[in-house]
Amino acid sequence: MAFGWIDEQAQARRRAGLVRTLRPRPADSPLLDLASNDYLGLAHHPEVTEGAARAARTWGGGATGSRLVTGTTELHAELERELAAFCGFEAALVFSSGYAANLAAVTALGPHGSLIVSDAGNHASLIDGCRLARGATQVVGHGDPEAVRKALATHEGTAIVVSDTVFSVDGDQAPLAELAAACREHGAGLVVDDAHGLGVLGEGGRGAPYATGLAGAEDVVVTATLSKSLGSQGGVVLGPARVIGHLVNAARTFIFDTGLAPAAAGAALAALRLLVREPERAARAREVASELHARLTAAGLEAVRPDAAVVSVRAPSPEQAVRWAADCRTAGLAVGCFRPPSVPDGISRLRLTARADLSGAEIERAVRVIGETRP
Amino acid sequence: MAFGWIDEQAQARRRAGLVRTLRPRPADSPLLDLASNDYLGLAHHPEVTEGAARAARTWGGGATGSRLVTGTTELHAELERELAAFCGFEAALVFSSGYAANLAAVTALGPHGSLIVSDAGNHASLIDGCRLARGATQVVGHGDPEAVRKALATHEGTAIVVSDTVFSVDGDQAPLAELAAACREHGAGLVVDDAHGLGVLGEGGRGAPYATGLAGAEDVVVTATLSKSLGSQGGVVLGPARVIGHLVNAARTFIFDTGLAPAAAGAALAALRLLVREPERAARAREVASELHARLTAAGLEAVRPDAAVVSVRAPSPEQAVRWAADCRTAGLAVGCFRPPSVPDGISRLRLTARADLSGAEIERAVRVIGETRP
Ligand SMILES: Cc1ncc(COP(=O)(O)O)c(C=O)c1O
Ligand SMILES: Cc1ncc(COP(=O)(O)O)c(C=O)c1O
Repeated sequence: MAFGWIDEQAQARRRAGLVRTLRPRPADSPLLDLASNDYLGLAHHPEVTEGAARAARTWGGGATGSRLVTGTTELHAELERELAAFCGFEAALVFSSGYAANLAAVTALGPHGSLIVSDAGNHASLIDGCRLARGATQVVGHGDPEAVRKALATHEGTAIVVSDTVFSVDGDQAPLAELAAACREHGAGLVVDDAHGLGVLGEGGRGAPYATGLAGAEDVVVTATLSKSLGSQGGVVLGPARVIGHLVNAARTFIFDTGLAPAAAGAALAALRLLVREPERAARAREVASELHARLTAAGLEAVRPDAAVVSVRAPSPEQAVRWAADCRTAGLAVGCFRPPSVPDGISRLRLTARADLSGAEIERAVRVIGETRP
Repeated sequence: MAFGWIDEQAQARRRAGLVRTLRPRPADSPLLDLASNDYLGLAHHPEVTEGAARAARTWGGGATGSRLVTGTTELHAELERELAAFCGFEAALVFSSGYAANLAAVTALGPHGSLIVSDAGNHASLIDGCRLARGATQVVGHGDPEAVRKALATHEGTAIVVSDTVFSVDGDQAPLAELAAACREHGAGLVVDDAHGLGVLGEGGRGAPYATGLAGAEDVVVTATLSKSLGSQGGVVLGPARVIGHLVNAARTFIFDTGLAPAAAGAALAALRLLVREPERAARAREVASELHARLTAAGLEAVRPDAAVVSVRAPSPEQAVRWAADCRTAGLAVGCFRPPSVPDGISRLRLTARADLSGAEIERAVRVIGETRP
């Protein structure tokens, strides 16, 4: 029978205790949320939800076509202008998701004959971009600029180096300045995914490239998502106008995809304006992460010092990680749980996210629950 | 300089007259729209935009995480239940875009060692799905069940056949019943993209698979988008519960992508309920397409008889197609223009879309403008 083979795989997953299931949440979930990527606590901010509502009313429920046909509105253009200005880049292009933005950037900038050097810890969407691109991919060790240098030295012709700025699993930062230096030695382009940096790192949340002095450089391209700090949905590529123009002409996930829904563009734009007005939100997210880390460590837990707003806590085994997260949930706390096969290094962990709007009491409660439920 | 190679490509594009640029539209565009994929005219329907607005207020501007972490709400579950019931399938899974849904279905159902038989006219997202999948892809001639049979006969082990139901360029339908028969002879699964069928074909717009008696079959999987007839954004995979469960566990564009924004889910759900209540909208879209085709033909234009709501008109050359579309625009009519490299067969054409809410006078005006501007 056509899809019968699926049952075997499902059974193996069940035996290994690795079945994933969906757990729909109600609108008024009683859980304390340390699992979402809503770093600035903006997804439910009335200005953001009103931005979505207003945009839907004005521009419709959907974009109605590819951005190249009927799917580009003045709202999309406005969002692109303000994102570019905020992050310090010449131009920006908005996509239906961060995933689509990453596929676009890597495939369009890694053409046939080029080399793509990719960090071993990169996000799935960058990896899929490498696999779709016509260029040859060389994977290098995690956070290793020397390895990047060596890889670049093996290749004549165009090359790009691709990396997350903040890695989603452990929340550690890439050595951006060294990566940029390695790129410049070899005339390569640097393409970095600031999904977990935008809104958290850099002055007022302008992102990791801005913080490293790379914003606006002609050899740097940044991708990001509108679905984390900006509390919405969508993705963006930021870079020189020549690169953005190239994406419009060459990126399949731009050309053959319906434009971002107006409501999502409106929500992201409202969140961005809020952040411009209240830049302290970014610093607060970092503070919450530091406090979370300090308290977890004080409680004897093995937490990775956070570079941004993600705090990772080691678990002894995949099974124990799953049980730990479930026990937290029972105690009213939502935490993320990363385990094989979705961690590159085989290490299972709880993944906590610091939200700028967490109170001291909430942080204390979260740490208490995590401590009390530890395996 | 890192991205200097882009300038050469841009220059070549300019010389060939093939530069694509974005033209943001205002909210109150005066153009008569025969270019969007808003087949049922629902993108601006007050129930749909209110559905978006209400969902944003209730559920937030974004889903805040992967569907497997915090990104699944009761709203997503509701949308999935109603889509599955409407299209006649056991289960459904909603994605951030139709593009992501196609990548998910093809990669998760075309594993290592399997064969993927893909129609030469398939949409870019299905093609990218084939390229990302670990299985081996064999491309067969457009709409050729005999070629599919032959391809399947060469392979032992699991196989899927992948096709659009309605092809986006010419609006022609795939021979679904014959494809299903070929699949059954070989125990292969059928994976079809009903992006342009949902809302238009089948009883009350239940889609091409429903119309062909394939809905709910255990060897059939359907993908679709929420961005065309449903006037929103997002994608869906419909199929047996075992397949949907497999996607939840194996599809990278599901696991590693933020959930669909609540506003988009709310808009799509409102549009679906409208369609259930007013099933005549689907028939009306088909009628408008027939009338458009009849009038164009009567005016001496070479139009392809529409199987759904897309009407394709041949243009003598890429340059003339581009000029023709531009002249229509100047005369107040928005039409699509397909030309190399985004047509597989090298034929340039205008692409007109029939909206259920076009009036007789609007159809007449559109045909007049197209006739008067013909090259
Ligand atoms: C590092 C990174 N890049 C890209 C993405 C994809 O962005 P989106 O969810 O907007 O598709 C994510 C997570 O979702 C991510 O963590
Ligand atoms: C046949 C087909 N499949 C898939 C898609 C992608 O859907 P979405 O735009 O929702 O990503 C499109 C167009 O956009 C399409 O025409």
